[in-house]
Amino acid sequence: MAIVLGANQYGKAEVRLLDVSRGDAADVITDLNVSVALSGELTATHLSGDNSDVLTTDAQKNTVFAFAREGGVGEIEDFALRLARHFVASQAAISFARVAVEQYPWERLAGHSFVRSGREVRTATVSHDGADSWVVSGVSGLTVLNTAGSEFWGFARDRYTTLAETTDRILATAVSARWRHASVTASAPCWADSYREARDLMLRAFADTHSYSLQQTLYAMGERVLDGRPEIAEIRLALPNKHHFEVDMSPFGLENGGQVFYAADRPYGLIEGTVTRDDAPPPGKAW
Amino acid sequence: MAIVLGANQYGKAEVRLLDVSRGDAADVITDLNVSVALSGELTATHLSGDNSDVLTTDAQKNTVFAFAREGGVGEIEDFALRLARHFVASQAAISFARVAVEQYPWERLAGHSFVRSGREVRTATVSHDGADSWVVSGVSGLTVLNTAGSEFWGFARDRYTTLAETTDRILATAVSARWRHASVTASAPCWADSYREARDLMLRAFADTHSYSLQQTLYAMGERVLDGRPEIAEIRLALPNKHHFEVDMSPFGLENGGQVFYAADRPYGLIEGTVTRDDAPPPGKAW
Amino acid sequence: MAIVLGANQYGKAEVRLLDVSRGDAADVITDLNVSVALSGELTATHLSGDNSDVLTTDAQKNTVFAFAREGGVGEIEDFALRLARHFVASQAAISFARVAVEQYPWERLAGHSFVRSGREVRTATVSHDGADSWVVSGVSGLTVLNTAGSEFWGFARDRYTTLAETTDRILATAVSARWRHASVTASAPCWADSYREARDLMLRAFADTHSYSLQQTLYAMGERVLDGRPEIAEIRLALPNKHHFEVDMSPFGLENGGQVFYAADRPYGLIEGTVTRDDAPPPGKAW
Amino acid sequence: MAIVLGANQYGKAEVRLLDVSRGDAADVITDLNVSVALSGELTATHLSGDNSDVLTTDAQKNTVFAFAREGGVGEIEDFALRLARHFVASQAAISFARVAVEQYPWERLAGHSFVRSGREVRTATVSHDGADSWVVSGVSGLTVLNTAGSEFWGFARDRYTTLAETTDRILATAVSARWRHASVTASAPCWADSYREARDLMLRAFADTHSYSLQQTLYAMGERVLDGRPEIAEIRLALPNKHHFEVDMSPFGLENGGQVFYAADRPYGLIEGTVTRDDAPPPGKAW
Repeated sequence: MAIVLGANQYGKAEVRLLDVSRGDAADVITDLNVSVALSGELTATHLSGDNSDVLTTDAQKNTVFAFAREGGVGEIEDFALRLARHFVASQAAISFARVAVEQYPWERLAGHSFVRSGREVRTATVSHDGADSWVVSGVSGLTVLNTAGSEFWGFARDRYTTLAETTDRILATAVSARWRHASVTASAPCWADSYREARDLMLRAFADTHSYSLQQTLYAMGERVLDGRPEIAEIRLALPNKHHFEVDMSPFGLENGGQVFYAADRPYGLIEGTVTRDDAPPPGKAW
Repeated sequence: MAIVLGANQYGKAEVRLLDVSRGDAADVITDLNVSVALSGELTATHLSGDNSDVLTTDAQKNTVFAFAREGGVGEIEDFALRLARHFVASQAAISFARVAVEQYPWERLAGHSFVRSGREVRTATVSHDGADSWVVSGVSGLTVLNTAGSEFWGFARDRYTTLAETTDRILATAVSARWRHASVTASAPCWADSYREARDLMLRAFADTHSYSLQQTLYAMGERVLDGRPEIAEIRLALPNKHHFEVDMSPFGLENGGQVFYAADRPYGLIEGTVTRDDAPPPGKAW
Repeated sequence: MAIVLGANQYGKAEVRLLDVSRGDAADVITDLNVSVALSGELTATHLSGDNSDVLTTDAQKNTVFAFAREGGVGEIEDFALRLARHFVASQAAISFARVAVEQYPWERLAGHSFVRSGREVRTATVSHDGADSWVVSGVSGLTVLNTAGSEFWGFARDRYTTLAETTDRILATAVSARWRHASVTASAPCWADSYREARDLMLRAFADTHSYSLQQTLYAMGERVLDGRPEIAEIRLALPNKHHFEVDMSPFGLENGGQVFYAADRPYGLIEGTVTRDDAPPPGKAW
Repeated sequence: MAIVLGANQYGKAEVRLLDVSRGDAADVITDLNVSVALSGELTATHLSGDNSDVLTTDAQKNTVFAFAREGGVGEIEDFALRLARHFVASQAAISFARVAVEQYPWERLAGHSFVRSGREVRTATVSHDGADSWVVSGVSGLTVLNTAGSEFWGFARDRYTTLAETTDRILATAVSARWRHASVTASAPCWADSYREARDLMLRAFADTHSYSLQQTLYAMGERVLDGRPEIAEIRLALPNKHHFEVDMSPFGLENGGQVFYAADRPYGLIEGTVTRDDAPPPGKAW
């Protein structure tokens, strides 16, 4: 029996970068949080503290800033691809890189003035192993709510089941979704269009679906995205069930009438699922 | 020398309420976080645990829900006024109530579907002492950024001053502002209009002002609000200076050119100030 | 009618400082979060952007670091006093300074190794106006819980009161307390002893007091501190009632027996109160 | 091409449970956050909203409470095992359960009084597939710091490397570690002893190791645990490098002398690694 090093990775996390593309009448800003993770042949630093194969996380941070300057940021998928490929190509010991980017949305107030809008964050995670690259785009913090069209009944019952069936409940969730692109070759999609459409398809599916369970809504959202976006091979959604309980007002002589709800924090249901194509290319090292 | 009870208050904090006003084609939702604080003659419970004058915080919570049902929520200033007056009027021991409300904004996706929008939170704090009422409206989490039109130079210098002067910097802040209404009588403003206009005036002043200091921007924002909204007597702003530092790329042979910035977390400047009218009515117990 | 500048202050917030006092066998570390706020004659920067009287918040940050180096940190009350007096004494425009410090506790693992311990944070807020100084010490995040000795009954009842009376409940809170020292002259207390004793007296009072309301517990905690620490003139406590609800297991045929509780997040009761001496010196600008 | 449902799971997350084991002189409290995730044949609810195989997340929550009452909580690994096996055994559609538990530590003040201590959280994640069970224990939020014995030099250099080499730096991290037990059969370890010892071994390794990289420290911590605890097959650590930068005081004529550091928030290095045995049993569905 011997003790050995297993899987490992390291990198700089949460590099907060604001890129300002200057224009005469108006600037364009890109507000990012970038995290890098590298892996490869890193036994020496773990076992003996020999750092000769360690590209410092400080240098990784500098690279993020420099690449923004040298080639611009552009779409976050492209930015992450450039970074991931650079680290693997330039460092002999590094055989795999994953670059994760969060983008915070802003709206323009005037040519050089902006207001941060929305809690929704656009995300991209790119993986690269020297030969292949994988792109996963996504969204987090997209909070949605239906006041009608949601039922929940006919569920299994055991000794501990006390929940009442309902044909009319509030359905609310904060969508976290990540979708894997089928290809990142020359035929790569317009990332911006792809993101906007995937997001909108999810929102429309959430609004349209008469729901008998949050699982059903999840599947409908995923199906709508795959149906509408051929470039997407697979989508994974995590939907917390943000419970809104109808307040019982009978003790003070009132009937609620489906008007007043208490928004609970914890516990919450958590529904997670994947929707994919039966002929999707294998995921490789995308996730 | 004796040990005595001083100022005190108690109440239920953070009652999370969703109100759904049902319509045939579309519902209207109001998403609130309501906190109540009551004070008065409460010596008995502090000194001997005699609770006969204590309206439970649980009952306060129930009251928030019931009032939403009985009279609707409407504008948060009105909702808070109704609650504050109720507690003082109905409880002999309670001589003062403060009700603070946060409202989270949602946008409509479809008749019964909504998406939460923005990080900006609308606030109202109402105080009532049995005779008079005071209304303070506000906003928090309104994050804004200018890529041009901000300078900072000519400041005092001491032994510890190392900051370089600049005629071109990023100016960013997350606006927290609260403004006191001059009157809450029959001539009370349309709260919704007043809020929207005050918020917009602040945004416009932030965008318009060529800034030599965040203090100057703060004053300009407050002045603009008072100038445009006669119903507002006084405004208090707290503006964290969300520093964005231009990354020094000279070590790797690049010139930044005002394009790439590092968004720092801590420490941050914090600029707080009041803009008022010289003939404003006294604040009383508003704050 | 004119629009005018009212009360204002500015400064650097949340300077995160680790001080290492080196010793041969063991180091001593002090882990702080320091915030500075200055006020005085600052009309020019607000109205015209003339910054000649503005000591930059960057210089304030540098001063915090430099003062740690030049005189050591020592007790946080002393450190804050030195800083506050320096800003007022050295800047003609500044007539008032407030320095707030949070200290995070660490335990020693070995001579040069430490583990952060506890969620309790020690605090100090010092105010100085050129002539007088005020010191408020405190604690935050001191979370305590009694499984016995807590009742709540005999409370007021109105239409919205549904809470059941209880002679046996869980009492839990996260203590935030701040206490004003009577004097900061040469007869100032040993701050470290004063803090440790005040904290311990509160803990003992929380544990000892058979409670009929959280208000009663609050008063008992404050009284115990004032009784035991003559240097303290006044104490202000904020005690969230961290509700633990006994789970109703009757639907699945079980009797709870006071064993299993659900720890709720929101809403929560919030009990705030002051305990003072009837001959306490006036608070001046301490708070 | 068809769109199909892929991997999915659902459950109740973050059930906050306080268990009070009553004793004459003293109670024992166990403060938990329990999350359940179930998977199996759940196509119907996703595709058609047929919930007949869905055990509600509400019932899962009730089960957590009821099991605490019926068999006590005991060690969190055992509690999670009981829950995971119950869900799979009792629900025909459910073939796999994962139960994750966080335990918050408290110290006794007196027989029935407690103070929450430390930021360290003990964790357990149990997986069960009907035949086999896997137990992963762990810790999170264990923040440690060395003021001496840490160097970092000899690292790779590229165009973007600007970091200075150092033979003396602050090394600080917040340990998140999870370790897989080799067996959960009758020969299962005393979970409490195993946890305490694994934690202590990590702390001692952190303190003892003269470090040339955080990777080296990570490996040393993992190796120490495996060396000392035969019941543990594998350990995974995630160590954020909580950077403490020595403040440059030369601009104001001071020499730092390794005394005053700035504790940075973001970005941070993130070092992740696995230490295992070369004859460890396969992980199965443990992670």
